[in-house]
Amino acid sequence: MKSKAVFYHAGCPVCVDAEQKLAHALNPGQYQVEIVHLGESKSRLPEALKLGVKSVPALAIDGDVFHINFGAPIEALQ
Amino acid sequence: MKSKAVFYHAGCPVCVDAEQKLAHALNPGQYQVEIVHLGESKSRLPEALKLGVKSVPALAIDGDVFHINFGAPIEALQ
Repeated sequence: MKSKAVFYHAGCPVCVDAEQKLAHALNPGQYQVEIVHLGESKSRLPEALKLGVKSVPALAIDGDVFHINFGAPIEALQ
Repeated sequence: MKSKAVFYHAGCPVCVDAEQKLAHALNPGQYQVEIVHLGESKSRLPEALKLGVKSVPALAIDGDVFHINFGAPIEALQ
């Protein structure tokens, strides 16, 4: 069974770069990657906050959050 | 030809977590991943600094640096 990876972003340049270079670099045989734009999908904010996402871009792999560089604080999206 | 990815770390808990969960999650068919412990391999520091690594853990993919969470500033390793 594939692991679940969720890439949270907000369309910022830092986010786009991380999405293209890192989120899409995950092993497709092992990970099912979902891309979530928190600015457009505000209904996903509670889930992201619960996981511990403090800024975007962030990649959650099986519930572990990795903040990648720094695009924007999550407070700016609330 | 595979792309080159270099994971720079310093053995810190944040680093180990990122190595296990993220560095090893890259598509092995597309990326050749090298793991570099900057505390033990200080000769690699100039290369990391030149790439723009400011803290560890960091993952450089084809020369683009992604700082992942925050373990230690690179100055602490110099």
